[in-house]
Amino acid sequence: MPVSKATAVASPNIAFIKYWGNRYHSLRLPVNSSLSMNLGGLFTRTTVTFDPALAADAVVLDRAALSPEASRRVTEHLDRVRALANTATRAQVDSHNNFPTGAGIASSASGFAALTVAACAAAGLRLSERELSVLARQGSGSASRSIPAGFVEWQAGTNNDDSFAFSIAAPDHWALVDCIAIVSDEHKAVGSTGGHAIAHTSPLQTARIEDTLRRLGLCREALLARDFPRFAEVVEEDSTMMHAVMMTSRPPLYYWQPPTLAIMEAVRGWRAGGLPVCFTIDAGPNIHVITLAAHAAEIESRLRALPGVQNVLRAAPGGGAELLGS
Amino acid sequence: MPVSKATAVASPNIAFIKYWGNRYHSLRLPVNSSLSMNLGGLFTRTTVTFDPALAADAVVLDRAALSPEASRRVTEHLDRVRALANTATRAQVDSHNNFPTGAGIASSASGFAALTVAACAAAGLRLSERELSVLARQGSGSASRSIPAGFVEWQAGTNNDDSFAFSIAAPDHWALVDCIAIVSDEHKAVGSTGGHAIAHTSPLQTARIEDTLRRLGLCREALLARDFPRFAEVVEEDSTMMHAVMMTSRPPLYYWQPPTLAIMEAVRGWRAGGLPVCFTIDAGPNIHVITLAAHAAEIESRLRALPGVQNVLRAAPGGGAELLGS
Repeated sequence: MPVSKATAVASPNIAFIKYWGNRYHSLRLPVNSSLSMNLGGLFTRTTVTFDPALAADAVVLDRAALSPEASRRVTEHLDRVRALANTATRAQVDSHNNFPTGAGIASSASGFAALTVAACAAAGLRLSERELSVLARQGSGSASRSIPAGFVEWQAGTNNDDSFAFSIAAPDHWALVDCIAIVSDEHKAVGSTGGHAIAHTSPLQTARIEDTLRRLGLCREALLARDFPRFAEVVEEDSTMMHAVMMTSRPPLYYWQPPTLAIMEAVRGWRAGGLPVCFTIDAGPNIHVITLAAHAAEIESRLRALPGVQNVLRAAPGGGAELLGS
Repeated sequence: MPVSKATAVASPNIAFIKYWGNRYHSLRLPVNSSLSMNLGGLFTRTTVTFDPALAADAVVLDRAALSPEASRRVTEHLDRVRALANTATRAQVDSHNNFPTGAGIASSASGFAALTVAACAAAGLRLSERELSVLARQGSGSASRSIPAGFVEWQAGTNNDDSFAFSIAAPDHWALVDCIAIVSDEHKAVGSTGGHAIAHTSPLQTARIEDTLRRLGLCREALLARDFPRFAEVVEEDSTMMHAVMMTSRPPLYYWQPPTLAIMEAVRGWRAGGLPVCFTIDAGPNIHVITLAAHAAEIESRLRALPGVQNVLRAAPGGGAELLGS
């Protein structure tokens, strides 16, 4: 392969119905389907350059070399692309997030989605959106959801080929805004990959899985009907069910911190007072506060007034992963 | 019946394996068995005086008349005693707690246990401990556990007569101390009775119930073997499983407050640092921090240094409900 280069962007996503636990870990086949929204305006931009002169992959994120463990995960993903393209050429990967890494925003989702799209293009592969989603999933489960645009469902599927994400509504379907309240920028003690691996040790995980299609159906319907009250109820329920599993796994994983709980309580109070607002929390202390665009400024300002809130990022529904013109 | 009077005391109890949800509400038959420790030094002292001159029951708690709803619950309980004693005589009930009411300490447990023992004695009934436990249970489920002494198991049973509590170890079996950190003395928005009634609406309640005998067995074994590390793990797991059910019921019940979560995190850290300490939380924001007597002063002082802790009460294993000499 001659020197060949491509650049792609992808947004992180916030899951309204969460992914927690793998059925088959090495393929990142999830135990349950999930549903998410891409976070517009936040993105990872990744350039992949295959270069026969390289002896090994070289991976840079935000101008710094990755840890050996994170680098190995990228190399394993490039190996998947190389296998499809039938090449052994090593690559230079240069990646940049326009949002803080490790801030409770799934940077591995946008990272592996952008990496997948850029690497496939640089390797001369022309994959469908579905194939890109399948491939991205193997790098990081939730990256499968950052491939399609807008509001996205990831069907758990039964094997490598039918576990992929697809768009259920375009970004302009509903003017939701995610106000991400940053309460801590500490790195997580246990990351998602480690958490997925112990999800099955919770006595509550089976019940959570078995109830998924009910919650997913409610969420999908509420989203398609733009019914905020029903949406709010199931989104908070799903988030808390995932944290219930986390807090009862062995070892228990407690991601909520005191300000997280204070914001949860405030959000429920604001909703009881008539505002369209609800919360959802991933594997970290920060809290995603979902509202409608017309109320986003008000919600952001209320969040900033709460103790422990260091910053608030705002994101509207975003597009899918995209190749940038060279 | 001539004027007839008796006084009894009973302690509240803290459940290590929690009771949450009724199988048959009017009899307060629980969905799962539970395990608790009486809280020595804390008590309700209740005098019941049956008096033919009274037109209605008159109930006083801490020198104030009870609310109509709470009074009706006491009258319904007195009716059970009157039915057994075959009398219609009304009673004066004078009750006093030596601990703050509504402080996350189950005052209904000690209250209905003391009421049961005093009312039965005043009515001339001589019931066994088991019969008293069955009767107390109908007033308040956890009151069944405040009848026997020390460490107590309440077997769920299948009907009114086999759902009762019994002692599995005397108070001096193990020098545990409950350091109760008071973070709020606000009255609960939703009390236990209301919570029990909606427990079944959580998608996680069935899994919690089905897993009970595993947790109960682990807890009983650890307690009988005085194995603190195993005890700590299952006590925290059980508490968090109950709160998982509460937070995912309809409506969701969030009893934890930010300081509750901060103390949970601190306690886990202290244990990781080698101290024998764990937490358990009932239907309120206050947190019961369990340790061994040799470490109680250290734990109490650490708790008092945490933000949001208004007070700390200490209790060692307590005796059962007792009639006081007249």
